[in-house]
Amino acid sequence: MTTVADILNYVETLAPRAMKMDWDNVGLLCGSRSTPVTKILVALDPFEGVVDEAAAMGAELIVTHHPLIFRPVPNVTDETSIGRGIMKLCRHGISAINAHTNLDQAPGGVNDVLAQTLGLRNIQVINPRGLDAEGRPWGLLHCGETTAQSLDSFLEAAKAVLHCEGLRFVSSGKSVQKVAVGGGSCADGMLDALAAGCDTFVTADVKYNQFWDAHDLGLNLIDAGHFHTENPVIPVLATKIAAQFPEIEVKISETHWDCVKYY
Amino acid sequence: MTTVADILNYVETLAPRAMKMDWDNVGLLCGSRSTPVTKILVALDPFEGVVDEAAAMGAELIVTHHPLIFRPVPNVTDETSIGRGIMKLCRHGISAINAHTNLDQAPGGVNDVLAQTLGLRNIQVINPRGLDAEGRPWGLLHCGETTAQSLDSFLEAAKAVLHCEGLRFVSSGKSVQKVAVGGGSCADGMLDALAAGCDTFVTADVKYNQFWDAHDLGLNLIDAGHFHTENPVIPVLATKIAAQFPEIEVKISETHWDCVKYY
Amino acid sequence: MTTVADILNYVETLAPRAMKMDWDNVGLLCGSRSTPVTKILVALDPFEGVVDEAAAMGAELIVTHHPLIFRPVPNVTDETSIGRGIMKLCRHGISAINAHTNLDQAPGGVNDVLAQTLGLRNIQVINPRGLDAEGRPWGLLHCGETTAQSLDSFLEAAKAVLHCEGLRFVSSGKSVQKVAVGGGSCADGMLDALAAGCDTFVTADVKYNQFWDAHDLGLNLIDAGHFHTENPVIPVLATKIAAQFPEIEVKISETHWDCVKYY
Amino acid sequence: MTTVADILNYVETLAPRAMKMDWDNVGLLCGSRSTPVTKILVALDPFEGVVDEAAAMGAELIVTHHPLIFRPVPNVTDETSIGRGIMKLCRHGISAINAHTNLDQAPGGVNDVLAQTLGLRNIQVINPRGLDAEGRPWGLLHCGETTAQSLDSFLEAAKAVLHCEGLRFVSSGKSVQKVAVGGGSCADGMLDALAAGCDTFVTADVKYNQFWDAHDLGLNLIDAGHFHTENPVIPVLATKIAAQFPEIEVKISETHWDCVKYY
Amino acid sequence: MTTVADILNYVETLAPRAMKMDWDNVGLLCGSRSTPVTKILVALDPFEGVVDEAAAMGAELIVTHHPLIFRPVPNVTDETSIGRGIMKLCRHGISAINAHTNLDQAPGGVNDVLAQTLGLRNIQVINPRGLDAEGRPWGLLHCGETTAQSLDSFLEAAKAVLHCEGLRFVSSGKSVQKVAVGGGSCADGMLDALAAGCDTFVTADVKYNQFWDAHDLGLNLIDAGHFHTENPVIPVLATKIAAQFPEIEVKISETHWDCVKYY
Amino acid sequence: MTTVADILNYVETLAPRAMKMDWDNVGLLCGSRSTPVTKILVALDPFEGVVDEAAAMGAELIVTHHPLIFRPVPNVTDETSIGRGIMKLCRHGISAINAHTNLDQAPGGVNDVLAQTLGLRNIQVINPRGLDAEGRPWGLLHCGETTAQSLDSFLEAAKAVLHCEGLRFVSSGKSVQKVAVGGGSCADGMLDALAAGCDTFVTADVKYNQFWDAHDLGLNLIDAGHFHTENPVIPVLATKIAAQFPEIEVKISETHWDCVKYY
Repeated sequence: MTTVADILNYVETLAPRAMKMDWDNVGLLCGSRSTPVTKILVALDPFEGVVDEAAAMGAELIVTHHPLIFRPVPNVTDETSIGRGIMKLCRHGISAINAHTNLDQAPGGVNDVLAQTLGLRNIQVINPRGLDAEGRPWGLLHCGETTAQSLDSFLEAAKAVLHCEGLRFVSSGKSVQKVAVGGGSCADGMLDALAAGCDTFVTADVKYNQFWDAHDLGLNLIDAGHFHTENPVIPVLATKIAAQFPEIEVKISETHWDCVKYY
Repeated sequence: MTTVADILNYVETLAPRAMKMDWDNVGLLCGSRSTPVTKILVALDPFEGVVDEAAAMGAELIVTHHPLIFRPVPNVTDETSIGRGIMKLCRHGISAINAHTNLDQAPGGVNDVLAQTLGLRNIQVINPRGLDAEGRPWGLLHCGETTAQSLDSFLEAAKAVLHCEGLRFVSSGKSVQKVAVGGGSCADGMLDALAAGCDTFVTADVKYNQFWDAHDLGLNLIDAGHFHTENPVIPVLATKIAAQFPEIEVKISETHWDCVKYY
Repeated sequence: MTTVADILNYVETLAPRAMKMDWDNVGLLCGSRSTPVTKILVALDPFEGVVDEAAAMGAELIVTHHPLIFRPVPNVTDETSIGRGIMKLCRHGISAINAHTNLDQAPGGVNDVLAQTLGLRNIQVINPRGLDAEGRPWGLLHCGETTAQSLDSFLEAAKAVLHCEGLRFVSSGKSVQKVAVGGGSCADGMLDALAAGCDTFVTADVKYNQFWDAHDLGLNLIDAGHFHTENPVIPVLATKIAAQFPEIEVKISETHWDCVKYY
Repeated sequence: MTTVADILNYVETLAPRAMKMDWDNVGLLCGSRSTPVTKILVALDPFEGVVDEAAAMGAELIVTHHPLIFRPVPNVTDETSIGRGIMKLCRHGISAINAHTNLDQAPGGVNDVLAQTLGLRNIQVINPRGLDAEGRPWGLLHCGETTAQSLDSFLEAAKAVLHCEGLRFVSSGKSVQKVAVGGGSCADGMLDALAAGCDTFVTADVKYNQFWDAHDLGLNLIDAGHFHTENPVIPVLATKIAAQFPEIEVKISETHWDCVKYY
Repeated sequence: MTTVADILNYVETLAPRAMKMDWDNVGLLCGSRSTPVTKILVALDPFEGVVDEAAAMGAELIVTHHPLIFRPVPNVTDETSIGRGIMKLCRHGISAINAHTNLDQAPGGVNDVLAQTLGLRNIQVINPRGLDAEGRPWGLLHCGETTAQSLDSFLEAAKAVLHCEGLRFVSSGKSVQKVAVGGGSCADGMLDALAAGCDTFVTADVKYNQFWDAHDLGLNLIDAGHFHTENPVIPVLATKIAAQFPEIEVKISETHWDCVKYY
Repeated sequence: MTTVADILNYVETLAPRAMKMDWDNVGLLCGSRSTPVTKILVALDPFEGVVDEAAAMGAELIVTHHPLIFRPVPNVTDETSIGRGIMKLCRHGISAINAHTNLDQAPGGVNDVLAQTLGLRNIQVINPRGLDAEGRPWGLLHCGETTAQSLDSFLEAAKAVLHCEGLRFVSSGKSVQKVAVGGGSCADGMLDALAAGCDTFVTADVKYNQFWDAHDLGLNLIDAGHFHTENPVIPVLATKIAAQFPEIEVKISETHWDCVKYY
């Protein structure tokens, strides 16, 4: 019978452990490799609501991008959100696995899918950190070309395909032709994006001084939201797992969405 | 004749050096205490455009909230934004002084003015760190009461009085009655805001995981922008300096504004 | 109804949180303060067997000396002993609380009971770290007097009252009159024991170089086992809880014993 | 004439300096390389009694496993055991050399001899750290096979050949077939022993939590004493030196023995 | 037209950046690469007097050995010597470039020239750290041979060719035949000088304990002054720049000299 | 009979342990408190020559300012100067005590005597760190007044009374009226000397950049040598010990002198 171990092995074929950052926490973070699996819930985050949804559907496994535990925890109680999540997982016998920075960097992972979602062409890895088993370069930031257009035009398209409620950005006055992407908090990579010849950089969690840095460096910088720049990989991942394990019901979370609103 | 030293001494009466954080850099960061002053430009940031504006008006001094140099610099060249600013200041004989975390925490400073601007009543310091010379408590986060209202209603009013182009927020479902404020990057103070009985917290530079933390803790969290939550203190500061030194022309920057746009 | 919070509050009356070492982890480490409690299992360690025993008796709470989690954990899986323990606790809705270095140091705690169990008279705290609410000194090492006797005679008695299967020791050649005690790994306190005028020191987890240090310093050093020097407090603690909460069934673990054997 | 340098060079042929741990202190720790040598005392430790014995026999050199100085010393006085040892060595013109972690790891060193003493067959290095000049692997833990037997049977034999007065152990319930050895404080190597397929691990200075770890991991863990697991190499080392330098009187310490007793 | 960038590129051909120490600060430390250059002032140090001299001669660039900024600076004011220098440079539009430890170590750099100035023959690098583009070894300390002579004779000659007002030294009693040199603060290299077979070491900024170390090690140690051991490279560097850029006026500072006097 | 302990206790009455810097090593650094003493050798440094001189005169104790061991030592061999010193001390049964930074800072200590030797009047402690048992302030730097004179005149006098062979200095152009002193390596105290209103500072081990700092700050800075600025206290200390212990022969080293020469 298919077990948690089988799913994890497959996910780590897509996003090999060796691609993760040193400080990251990925793999089986709750439960047991030997648990038989018939239903899986896939979501960006392993938050309480996602656990509830998994329990409601009778899933034995959740597969997420973000780790259930990032900083090691000194307790598991109902006084923290992480504790409540773990308690529910254990109570329902649900395991939790994740692929985080390994999925960010893998071919076909977070940033590759983000670039595709934005319709970029000739997608490449900026500063590849290695080659995968198939000889493809992997790494964090990706970039690609788009039809030359105004920043406004690009913002409108990005907002639509990423399903953003709102966007924040700084304009350098340049038109958009070559775009770097780094889902989540990647604004530190600004100089790498510039060095790669990009005029525009799509990322998230951008701070005031980083917006000004982009302004001074002459880079269009777009904060399209942490959720909306990373979530595109989730249906792709779910589809791959479902295809690999046709006997298993694989569902994408219907309850988990971005909590951040714009006014 | 009035000198840079006189202005600095007055500013540090309003925002005493002893109130700054250990890691901060405040006071005279460029130029000379002995320079005579006839014109002053006041702005939130000591960026290149502000220096240009000061030079154009013939000012001998800029007074800002953010420091010209935050991390000590290994060079002063036209290859960095800070270097270009310093080179221009020196070329035009303009000095630069600032009050940063001392102004954040002082009575009548950044957060006090922010609370007033939001129309809060019965304004108090959350976790005071000491008393000033007049016996008033001082500290980072402030809070106050507002007429009970929906979050939407509060967002609309805040956006108007802070002149925000846009806002990001997470709703806890609670109505707004007691509001904590921390201009700039203060989302780490979320638990303090809750402990003080606040239902709503206005700050900036909020990251994805912090929005979710607020969501889980049941706190309305509003990111109204770093610029827009701190800039209200600037006209107040300029007015005080002008009143104290009537012989000096004190101007608020007309060119410096938030570079961050919303779509 | 009596809850986990009530039991924890009472335990922390006996062993106040303020008495714990900075690096320690005590209190509610798994579960929920609001859980109603009808049955409690008390044991030195929160190991898997103890959790099984608690589940079998229908307990909603285990009270232990050692913490369930010492170094914060990066995951909760069946691949580690701690993970298995947490998973079982959560599955059965059992909470876990503990008092560790606060119980070591409290009046009536681990070392006070150890000294009493060894029949010492005029028991005192070596290097008190403060006074408790009743004005009694508290601290780690305790000492007391015994009838002057040979080391062999003392070893025989200690082995009997501590229920040790075996003991390790080094003899200084001195007879036994004044004895220091430090349950668990306290051999670092050797110089303090000597400075307090003791000829003999009972502790555990003693290493080769520590035995030789004692030899060179002229101190009888006895390693009576980590379990056997700390476990005496367990029935005392259980009795106090039972007396305070007569409506609750309080049981001492029948399955948990020292795994270390002598040959 | 044979000098201290000649003996040291030979010892470091047996246990090359390059095999020592980074933090270790080995080689000539007291005296002079140029001292002519006619008599040598060999012992596990360079303690005061050993120095007295060397002085009494007229030795110009002691050769030990443990270093005379481990943590560098801020003084040399009669108020510390190390100071007294150094003062006596200097007064009598005796030099002191040692081979510590280099001897632990060398072929024919501490752990190789320990494995042989226990009668293990097909002895191998677990996780070799390199090859010596003769192409033999070297490293800390060693392992080997024994005739399948009960743990009791193995304990009886080990106690006899290691001349232990007592032993501490935890039983996993498994019979003994493949045994890992690490003389001194090597319990941290437990997972390596398991990964090498061992059912039993002989080491020393084992702490309570380590015994329980072994219990949970299903490994028989035996603490046979720091002295008794390392001392077997001493006669082997003395014999080699005597064979290499037939003109020198090489004696094994008759006074140095384990200070730890069992009751 | 020749720019600062052209001069810097040429200087870094002579003293490649890759030869600098990790902790060093070299290259363009003030001004702009794009500034056209017609006059250059070359000096050991970028002190205020040197900047004044550059301004007086109408230079657009100073080239020095020591960096304008060593520890990054938190401000640029007239309250520090560095601040005054930077303010004057900026006011006069003068750039500042330097080659520090890269020039110390380069073939033809500080120590190579120092060895030549002392008339040493068969000059070699002690402990070379690499080969330059022409295959020549480079590194910090250099050494060479001299005609066998008394220390007094060597001191007299050294004092003359280095233009020292005074010298400090310790004599080992040995005559001078092989001399190591390390301009500036290189006394830490004493053991390397000895290992290279030198009897004499010329350096500067020597402390009391270092003089005694040399005394105990049997090495003639000469402190000929930081300025006087490094300044010989300055005219060599100026001459090379002038030859490379014949259209530019290159002047050696006439005002900068050693401030240290002897009595 | 008078013992090492008696002498040490007396020396620590003059220079209390509590006055030492945290990082310092003072007191009994070799030998035994219980050794009877009939002859003492007093010297600035505990170097090999001093130990030889002590052995030759039959002393049982050397009393020095500098510590025998500064950084703790990993061995005691004839391959280091410290090792040779300790070996000789032990061989001859000579103990070694010292008072280092406690003697620097004590009333009547190194800097007090240095100020007196220079003929300063109205001697005071700069930045006192506390009061001694007699209520006198103590601390590192001292200062005092002298008859107004040219720097040359002061240098001539200082050189004579301190018995310097040579001096190094930088002149600020100021005449000499108020002089700070800090025997040994105290140039870091330059700003404190200036703040105390001094025009001149006498210390030692001054580096190139420190000479320039003094130049820029307008302070006459004199490096009169580590030995010559500290040795004046030695005869004072010897006389006090001799007066306190009339039964003991107290000799000042005749062989130990400054190894540094000027040319």
